[in-house]
Amino acid sequence: MAHVGDNRRKVIFLLIDGMGSLPVKDGKTEWELTPTPNLDKLMQKGVYGLMHPIRIGVIPGSDTSQLNMLGYPPEKFYPGRGPLEALGIGMELKQGDIAFRANFATVDNNLVVKDRRAGRIETQDAHALAREISYMKIDGLEFIFKASVEHRGSVIVRGNVRGLGSEGICDTDPHREGARVVLREDNALARAIKKYTLKAHEILSKSSINRKRKLPANALLLRGAGTYNEVEPFEKRFGMKACCVAGAALYKGIARYLGMHVCHVAGATGTYSTDLEAKARAASAHLKEYDFVYLHVKAMDNAGHDGNVKMRIEMIRKIDKMAGMLGKEDAILVVTGDHSTPPTKREHSFEPVPILISNVAARSYGMKKFCEVSCAQGELGRIEGKDIMGLVMAYSGRSEKYGE
Amino acid sequence: MAHVGDNRRKVIFLLIDGMGSLPVKDGKTEWELTPTPNLDKLMQKGVYGLMHPIRIGVIPGSDTSQLNMLGYPPEKFYPGRGPLEALGIGMELKQGDIAFRANFATVDNNLVVKDRRAGRIETQDAHALAREISYMKIDGLEFIFKASVEHRGSVIVRGNVRGLGSEGICDTDPHREGARVVLREDNALARAIKKYTLKAHEILSKSSINRKRKLPANALLLRGAGTYNEVEPFEKRFGMKACCVAGAALYKGIARYLGMHVCHVAGATGTYSTDLEAKARAASAHLKEYDFVYLHVKAMDNAGHDGNVKMRIEMIRKIDKMAGMLGKEDAILVVTGDHSTPPTKREHSFEPVPILISNVAARSYGMKKFCEVSCAQGELGRIEGKDIMGLVMAYSGRSEKYGE
Repeated sequence: MAHVGDNRRKVIFLLIDGMGSLPVKDGKTEWELTPTPNLDKLMQKGVYGLMHPIRIGVIPGSDTSQLNMLGYPPEKFYPGRGPLEALGIGMELKQGDIAFRANFATVDNNLVVKDRRAGRIETQDAHALAREISYMKIDGLEFIFKASVEHRGSVIVRGNVRGLGSEGICDTDPHREGARVVLREDNALARAIKKYTLKAHEILSKSSINRKRKLPANALLLRGAGTYNEVEPFEKRFGMKACCVAGAALYKGIARYLGMHVCHVAGATGTYSTDLEAKARAASAHLKEYDFVYLHVKAMDNAGHDGNVKMRIEMIRKIDKMAGMLGKEDAILVVTGDHSTPPTKREHSFEPVPILISNVAARSYGMKKFCEVSCAQGELGRIEGKDIMGLVMAYSGRSEKYGE
Repeated sequence: MAHVGDNRRKVIFLLIDGMGSLPVKDGKTEWELTPTPNLDKLMQKGVYGLMHPIRIGVIPGSDTSQLNMLGYPPEKFYPGRGPLEALGIGMELKQGDIAFRANFATVDNNLVVKDRRAGRIETQDAHALAREISYMKIDGLEFIFKASVEHRGSVIVRGNVRGLGSEGICDTDPHREGARVVLREDNALARAIKKYTLKAHEILSKSSINRKRKLPANALLLRGAGTYNEVEPFEKRFGMKACCVAGAALYKGIARYLGMHVCHVAGATGTYSTDLEAKARAASAHLKEYDFVYLHVKAMDNAGHDGNVKMRIEMIRKIDKMAGMLGKEDAILVVTGDHSTPPTKREHSFEPVPILISNVAARSYGMKKFCEVSCAQGELGRIEGKDIMGLVMAYSGRSEKYGE
C-alpha cells in the first residue's frame, strides 16, 4: 500500500529508453508484433497517447529528453553530458565546476591517437591507472579524475575558471584514430587543459600497468564539456520525494542532478543481461520511502542501435512482465520512452513514442493492444515531454484548482 | 533518383490552395466522394493528420498561411499583399520600398469610381497604357508601375519614406463603385500619393488608347500597401536550394520573397485550364537542380469560391493523377493545403486540412482513403502550419540530434 495521504498517490515512472519504432516486419513495429498481455490490461485502466519527447520533428538525445520529461526543460537546464556522466559515476560536483567525459586512449609519441579506447582496457587496470592521475593542480586549477567502466571515466576541473575564457571549451578528443589530440592555447583554461593532458600522458606512459599492454592506456581524451550549476531539487519542485533505479551512469547522473536518491540494484546493468525483475522489485520496495520512483530501462535502446529486432522483442516481453509486477502496486504507473530508436535506422529518431498513464480512473477508448498505433487513438492525443509532470501531478492528486 | 547525400532526401511540397472542404453531398466532402487511387497508395507509405495552417480557429489567408507553412511566421514576416504581388509579377523590390496592388479603373471628373476594373480592360491595352505611366518622380519619391493581367498591376513607391509618415498608409481604392478615390493630405507620403494619383489620372485621360473605350482606364486605384524588407533566404534558413512551380502571381511572389527560384511552366495558369501534368513534369525535372520544389495548385480554391462542386471533383481527379506522377520520384512528397474553401461557404474557412508526408518510413494506421476524415486518424494527429518545416527537415534527414 503506497498511499501518501487521503488522495495523493505515489508514482512509478517507467522510462523505456529508445522505446518507439518503425515497421520491422509485415508493416508492424516490434510492439505490434509482440504479445504484451500485462500492458494491454494496464491500458484498460489508464489513459494513453503518443508523445513527442521534446517537440514534434526534433530528434531527442536521451539526456535532454529525460530532463524535459522530468520537468526540467533542456533549453534552461541541460548542463551538457560531462556533468551528468560525472554525477552518474558518483563524483561530487560543486557549483561552477567544469566536467568532461574522459576516455583512456592509446597515443604515439606525437600524441596521435592509435586507439580511442586503449583496446577497451579492463576495468581493473583502468582503476589502477586512475589512482596515479586521480588529482592534479595546474595553474591554480584542480583536475580530478575518476574511472568508471573499461576505458570510461570523467574529469572535473575546479577553480575560478570564469575569467579564464571558459566559453566554448573544446574536446581534446579528435573523435577519430590517426588524428592528434586537440590541444589549444587560445585561453588560460585551454592552456591548463593542455598541461594537464601532457602531464597525464607523462605519468601514464611511465606506469607499470601499461608495460604489459599491447595498447597502453597512455592518454586521456576529454569530451562533452559542461558547467555544473545546481538546480531546484525535484522534491522541492514537485513535492515528491524521488529515487531512481537505473543501470547506466548517465541516468543515475540525471537523477543525482535533480536531487533524486540513486538506488543500488544488483543486476541492473543497463545492458542486455540486465535483471528487469530485480529492478521492478527494487522499485516496489522503494515505494515505501519514496513518492516518485524513476525506473530506467536502457537495453531497448541498445538493441535499436544494434539493429537487433530479436533482442527488441525479447526486451518487450521482459518489460511487459516488469510492467505486470509494477501494475500491482497501488501507485500510478507511467510507461513511456525518451525517443524512438528503430532498428531499421539504428539511431535515435523523432517519431513520437507511446505514453500510458495507468492505475487511474479513465475513460475507455477501446484499444486492446499496447503499441504505437493503438496509443495514437487514446485520450492523450499527441503531447510533448514537457506535459508529463503536469499530468503526473494531476493524476496523483497533487494539483490545485486554478480559479474557482 | 533525387538523393542529396547519404541520407538527405529531396522534397516536393504539393500545396493545394483551398484544399479542405465540408460535406457537399450525402454528408461527404469532395475528397470522400472522389476516387483518389494514387493518394490512397501514398497514404500506405506515409504519415498523415489534420493541420491548422495558422492556428485552430483562425481563417487563413493564402499569403499568411503559406508563409507560415514555409517556416516564416506571418506575425513577423508578412509584408502585406502589395510587396508579394509586385514580386510575383516580376518587379524588383529594394529594402524599404512600399508596394501596392493597383487596378486600372474608370472614374468621372470628380474621381468618383464608375468601374473598379475599367470594364476588365484587355491585357494588351493595359500594357500600352502602362508604358505612359511606368515611372514618375514626385516630391523626391519614385513611383514605378507595372501592369500584369487585365486591369491588374502593382505600384512601387521608392525613396526615403521613413520620415514621411508612412505609418498606416491607406488604400486609395474606395472598394466600391459610386465612391470617390480616397486621397489624403495628413502626411507627406499621403500628399505625394495624391499628386501621383492625380497625375496618372491626367495622363491616362489623355491617352489615345482610352479614346475608343466605353469605360476608359483613366485612373489607378491602390490597395494592399506593405513595406518590403529582405528576409533570410529559404536556402540559408533550411539548407535546401528551392524552386517554385506556380501559375498565379501571388505564389510566385511568395517564392521570390523567400529567395526561391521561380520556374516558368507553359500551361501553368492558376486557373481551371491549368495543365497539372505539365506542372508535375516540371517539378520532377527541377528535382535535379533543387532540393525543395514548392508546387502550387490554385484551381481548387477558385472552384471553392465559385461554389463549383463539379469542378472541385474534377480538380481532385487531376491532382490525384499528379500526385501519382510525383510519388514515383525518390523524394519526400508533402501534400497539404493552405486552408479550406468549402463550396458551400464560397470563402476561406478555418477547418483544418489534410496533410500527408509520403515516401517515408512510417507506422501503418490502416486508413484506406485519402480525405479529411481518414487523415484525422493518422500519427500526425493535429498539427499547425508552423510544424511542417521541422517535420520536413526531420524526414528528409536534415535534423540534428538535440543532446546525446
